[in-house]
Amino acid sequence: MAADALAELAKRRGFFFGSNGAYGGTAGFYTFGPQGAALKRNVEDAWRDRFTIREGNREIEAPTVMPEAVFEASGHLEGFDDMLVECPECGESHRADHLVEDATDVEDAEALPGEEVAELIAEEGIACPACGTELAGQPVEAFNLMFATDIGPGDAQPGYLRPETAQGIFVEFPRLKEYARGNLPFGITQIGPAYRNEISPRGGLLRLREFTQAELEQFIDPEEDEPPLDRVRDVEVRLYPATEQEADDGDYLDTTVGEAVDEGVIGSPWVGYYLGVAQEWYERVGVDLDRFRFRQHLAGERAHYAADCWDAESEVGGDWIEIAGFAYRGDYDLSKHDEYGDDAFTVFKRYDEPKTVERATVDPDMSVLGPEFGGDAAAVAEALETLAERDPDSFDGETVAVDVNGKTREVDADVANFSVEEVTESGEHITPHVVEPSFGVGRTVQTLLAHAYSEDEVDGEERTYLSLEPAVAPQDAAVFPLVTNDDRLTALADEVAADLRAAGLAVAYDDSGSIGRRYRRQDEVGTPFCVTVDRDGIEGDGPDTVTLRERDSAAQVRVPVADLADELTALREGEPFASVADRYDAVDTDVETAGN
Amino acid sequence: MAADALAELAKRRGFFFGSNGAYGGTAGFYTFGPQGAALKRNVEDAWRDRFTIREGNREIEAPTVMPEAVFEASGHLEGFDDMLVECPECGESHRADHLVEDATDVEDAEALPGEEVAELIAEEGIACPACGTELAGQPVEAFNLMFATDIGPGDAQPGYLRPETAQGIFVEFPRLKEYARGNLPFGITQIGPAYRNEISPRGGLLRLREFTQAELEQFIDPEEDEPPLDRVRDVEVRLYPATEQEADDGDYLDTTVGEAVDEGVIGSPWVGYYLGVAQEWYERVGVDLDRFRFRQHLAGERAHYAADCWDAESEVGGDWIEIAGFAYRGDYDLSKHDEYGDDAFTVFKRYDEPKTVERATVDPDMSVLGPEFGGDAAAVAEALETLAERDPDSFDGETVAVDVNGKTREVDADVANFSVEEVTESGEHITPHVVEPSFGVGRTVQTLLAHAYSEDEVDGEERTYLSLEPAVAPQDAAVFPLVTNDDRLTALADEVAADLRAAGLAVAYDDSGSIGRRYRRQDEVGTPFCVTVDRDGIEGDGPDTVTLRERDSAAQVRVPVADLADELTALREGEPFASVADRYDAVDTDVETAGN
Repeated sequence: MAADALAELAKRRGFFFGSNGAYGGTAGFYTFGPQGAALKRNVEDAWRDRFTIREGNREIEAPTVMPEAVFEASGHLEGFDDMLVECPECGESHRADHLVEDATDVEDAEALPGEEVAELIAEEGIACPACGTELAGQPVEAFNLMFATDIGPGDAQPGYLRPETAQGIFVEFPRLKEYARGNLPFGITQIGPAYRNEISPRGGLLRLREFTQAELEQFIDPEEDEPPLDRVRDVEVRLYPATEQEADDGDYLDTTVGEAVDEGVIGSPWVGYYLGVAQEWYERVGVDLDRFRFRQHLAGERAHYAADCWDAESEVGGDWIEIAGFAYRGDYDLSKHDEYGDDAFTVFKRYDEPKTVERATVDPDMSVLGPEFGGDAAAVAEALETLAERDPDSFDGETVAVDVNGKTREVDADVANFSVEEVTESGEHITPHVVEPSFGVGRTVQTLLAHAYSEDEVDGEERTYLSLEPAVAPQDAAVFPLVTNDDRLTALADEVAADLRAAGLAVAYDDSGSIGRRYRRQDEVGTPFCVTVDRDGIEGDGPDTVTLRERDSAAQVRVPVADLADELTALREGEPFASVADRYDAVDTDVETAGN
Repeated sequence: MAADALAELAKRRGFFFGSNGAYGGTAGFYTFGPQGAALKRNVEDAWRDRFTIREGNREIEAPTVMPEAVFEASGHLEGFDDMLVECPECGESHRADHLVEDATDVEDAEALPGEEVAELIAEEGIACPACGTELAGQPVEAFNLMFATDIGPGDAQPGYLRPETAQGIFVEFPRLKEYARGNLPFGITQIGPAYRNEISPRGGLLRLREFTQAELEQFIDPEEDEPPLDRVRDVEVRLYPATEQEADDGDYLDTTVGEAVDEGVIGSPWVGYYLGVAQEWYERVGVDLDRFRFRQHLAGERAHYAADCWDAESEVGGDWIEIAGFAYRGDYDLSKHDEYGDDAFTVFKRYDEPKTVERATVDPDMSVLGPEFGGDAAAVAEALETLAERDPDSFDGETVAVDVNGKTREVDADVANFSVEEVTESGEHITPHVVEPSFGVGRTVQTLLAHAYSEDEVDGEERTYLSLEPAVAPQDAAVFPLVTNDDRLTALADEVAADLRAAGLAVAYDDSGSIGRRYRRQDEVGTPFCVTVDRDGIEGDGPDTVTLRERDSAAQVRVPVADLADELTALREGEPFASVADRYDAVDTDVETAGN
């Protein structure tokens, strides 16, 4: 279905909608309504279960506001920009690269310098999409996408809303490694809001100014650590490698994770491992694998430090959208923070056995340096130490020269007390490498809705329904009294709903309108199971029973009230309805029509 | 234990710590480490289960950045201020009211005008706590506590980080009521970050600039809707009413929710209901009820629109801290948005039977008004309509006068075509009232840690442990191979850990150090159960078994591996260890000492 039809459905049924409608709306901000918030939370819980708990990783929660120093180190302050062009007439702001891409054959205008984009705008006579004024001559400027704010009053500290959750993990690496007792590999996850002050937010959940990420930072020793690739070796994946994208007759590569890693199509076994885990997870939460692929980044798309990058993409409304990225980031992140921060972003790697190495040292005679160099004496001593480490041969002569505070200072080699010692080292400090699977939660939600949208005919009537997986559906079940003019039915329905809620199930209760209408209402929001309390269920000799209806098949079985919570829990955990249905009597689905 | 000892423990054990330590730290921001994030999430899940799912309420998720118009309506733009005084010497900012309270007998300096606080600072000779410079003569200014930012480029829209999650609910009321199909009462919840740009953040999780709220907005028809008070009527509560706080010999009132509502100590039955629900919930997640009370707001503390307010308070390190607030907010919130916003923040309330009412109307003859009043004719007609509604008697004479654009206009009564009609009305639009339970998640976490902190002696050694409830403990269990030099043990331990994780349990794995040391490590982070794989468990004839140790008692039983996931799940759901232990053989706890 088209993106705008999905947006309309999402608003009407309480999945999501543009925020602050009563105040004219705020572009780029969406609110998840009751159905959408539940679906989103279930997706997050499923992600946590797979990428944190089952992997033995650890989750943290860092603030969304971070100080400027963090983004100086990460490079976001300098380079996290989009190309902005403003209309001189109406004042509307536009993505300059997008305007050029829409009007020309240029495919990746973002990679061009700003002046060149401005020239293309002039040459092509590109006009403001809002008011039609020609934009020739307008400057194309770099607009930083971070939301800025001030932390504290007075001489406030500049702060930014984090553009990715990852920085909240990287910046705390010195503490996180302690919690891992210094042992690699370990993985840290985080699920939470991230922010990008987009120039032109798009509709739906596609390009938001505030969105939710689920990120995993896998810290590894690049020389030692291997992923447990065998667990996903046989997972079948559809790959779209860079070479195929660039070839005239390029095609998908249908293969397995194991083969793709063995043959080097996927460069990093760690990236391959997480592609396999991700594909299994996407299938479990309900992504249609016929509308799913892993696309490799082209050389121009990748950050300079990223050795291999793949995106998970899903097809929504005819477009392929990125729903996750998998990057081998090397030591870029931790090295930058090690350089800018006041803490050690390394781990100590113990050798298998201690190594004996020669180490050059000096022990300068300060009683000579002091009188000779005065206030510079300490700096001279320090410079001698550094020189001994870097270039021990300098001490071969009678004097040795060091530069201190812009002056060259000569020191007698005797005074420096140069010597070479044998020392035993038990290990070394290494900077871990990072493998980063990064998921967009909202885009996953949007994909699930698009892929779950279904139409069919039940009892001679057309219906639309969402075939969401029970693991993520907003409600686990709905409970109805067949009629409301029989206290026995409403009392039992109340009791059933309360019991199911006490068992931790999310349950809707509905007693308004015909039973057929109520089924449709639940079908439309993807509730997988409906429980109807009817007279047949309470008038026999045996224990009370209810009907249990499965959404996609509209099939019904009669289940004792006492079994209901356990059966619904099993269904949510993944047991097929057919296997539950085998244990009970089928109900003739004419009942549904009769209730209409 | 004291607050700073708690903070130290929290950092060392991975619960929480000041953020951005490598960059000198950022006051008012904390990061939850692996243990703390898990504990916090379990608290949120438990809150959701109780206040959303079991109550049949609905949860939404709104953005954290909101446009200025929302806060014009809510009053935060104008009135969400603290008193700021800046040191002329060192530039440090301080809460002026706090300085005065610390230096004088004044108890609620916040309630005084700024000038008066400035005078008190001068009179008392209060000095800058940072550098000692006297602050006399420095202005006391109102500092708005919202973090400001710009949304979008160019002529950016001012935006703010929400100071409470509630506004994200209120502002979407027009859509939320549709999802409730227009029926009151209904409750909407939200859990998420909120922000206050505190002048002087305090230590720990007490006064943060970014924190997590769990809020419930209960929308009710004040004339019709009653809470299900009977469910919590007999819950015993310790109240500290305003009258007792003001009395010289004031004391707690130990009573039940039902009695307190019946006797009017709690003004609103809805507030009473939620106090009862909250107390049961606090007990379940592990708040020590001997260190807990509900304190009523004094008249001066309450917002002018709030009819009755109570705080839940817990004792931490000798201080009482507010951990939740319960307010009857009347129609304040929805009325303000109805006034400022472009949407209807009301619901249509159908009468039991239609009412016939007289309605005065006019049908002005525009062919007369047009020539007579020209461009003002439409405005005159509108003024006549308004007048007919407000004061039908004005139309008794031959002419009727209305004021339009500053001029008085006379119209013949005939031309106005005044008449009184009988109309049937099926209902009316009412503004729902709001009852708001609002929980601080971080402060709850801090309370749970403080109340769980325990010391005792096991096997002759002192130990400290956290007696966290299994429902909220960061890990459900830890798995150990007794020794690592026996592949059978490590293989089974790996398998047990994987099985438990597959069952959705959060499991730590630890194979380093003596078994006693490993038990202590888990005790320190509050893991309720430890599973040890030992030779006795795999060398007999029967099925493989492991030892299962309970944290607080250090008691152990021997459990078949096949039963483990089910038993641990039951224990997490609240089954007492004693009842599980009854089904298995006890293990002599000398085993633990032997392993040391």
